[in-house]
Amino acid sequence: MKNKDILTYTFEEYITMIEHFHGSVAPGILIGGFMVDLACRNIPKNTMYNVICETTKCLPDAVQLLTQCTIGNQRLKIINVGRYALTFYEKDTGWGIRIYLDYKKTEPWSEIKNWYLKVKPKHMQNKQLLLSQIKEAGTNLLGIKKVDVNIKLLGQKHNGRIVICPFCDEAYRVTNGTAVCPACREEILPYVLKTIKTAKTVL
Amino acid sequence: MKNKDILTYTFEEYITMIEHFHGSVAPGILIGGFMVDLACRNIPKNTMYNVICETTKCLPDAVQLLTQCTIGNQRLKIINVGRYALTFYEKDTGWGIRIYLDYKKTEPWSEIKNWYLKVKPKHMQNKQLLLSQIKEAGTNLLGIKKVDVNIKLLGQKHNGRIVICPFCDEAYRVTNGTAVCPACREEILPYVLKTIKTAKTVL
Repeated sequence: MKNKDILTYTFEEYITMIEHFHGSVAPGILIGGFMVDLACRNIPKNTMYNVICETTKCLPDAVQLLTQCTIGNQRLKIINVGRYALTFYEKDTGWGIRIYLDYKKTEPWSEIKNWYLKVKPKHMQNKQLLLSQIKEAGTNLLGIKKVDVNIKLLGQKHNGRIVICPFCDEAYRVTNGTAVCPACREEILPYVLKTIKTAKTVL
Repeated sequence: MKNKDILTYTFEEYITMIEHFHGSVAPGILIGGFMVDLACRNIPKNTMYNVICETTKCLPDAVQLLTQCTIGNQRLKIINVGRYALTFYEKDTGWGIRIYLDYKKTEPWSEIKNWYLKVKPKHMQNKQLLLSQIKEAGTNLLGIKKVDVNIKLLGQKHNGRIVICPFCDEAYRVTNGTAVCPACREEILPYVLKTIKTAKTVL
């Protein structure tokens, strides 16, 4: 069987998947593919795992493309601390491994280092060279550590009744006992409806 | 040409896509398909749009499956207020439409109402009936409103230098000028590494 770079895909097949799902072939999602590959080779087979991602940029899409952990099924959780790292952990025990892009290991690949540490602004980077270095480097850029995840802190909140907000007249999930939905309680949504909002009125 | 239910897909084709990406065929992601379909039929062709989703549950996956707005490419943003709603907005002007699941419109479909308003606990719901009612109802469950999105509040934060945190010795994106990464500054990650963490030491 032909050697595959990223799980059951060649590097080129993975690029096609990225173009379809994510749009542009960003360096971060390519490296993310190798991160997922390394994680999957280091967790026991048939393990029911979930994933924590430490950045919102690119990396979540590598996880969503290559595993069945997605934002919508709640098996991928983003805790954005701005680091390029993924933790795969066993759902019931918290046993896990954390894979991270190790800046020290980028040293032999000048263009990866330029991109990762933003040594050069984007328009001065050589994208072709960057992509070929990423393909060449593969999992050699990555660090891996065992971790214990406190699964109690990540417990899914299935609870929460569904009630109707008296202001927007929409159904919402109650999480803290307040009788007004979070959108009407605080101004946290960045839009205004083009009709006047009145309590109990269907807009 | 055969009539398609959800963008260019039949309902059955969409179910296959869900199984592959999301795992289970959840009612929320099915209805989400009709929401995306209705949105796409109401925005001008060739509009460069982004999406805001008001819940983390299921709905983000409908957007990611059917559009090129994903979490990782930052074109899908989740602002979790627990409502079942999506806003598609024009990236540069903020012109947009908000599609929501209108509880009042679930009245003719008993099992959809039972599911949405949690009238019955999950184990007492009839999943087959629920799915067939969702297929039958299509976009008839949905409300649609024009909105003005304040795009300044959603501006992408491209800025932020990449620096090395002196505690974890990893690269991270500086967003507020602090010289320690958010993960080391506050205990916001739910795991402990199985090695001792010391400043300036490679673990």
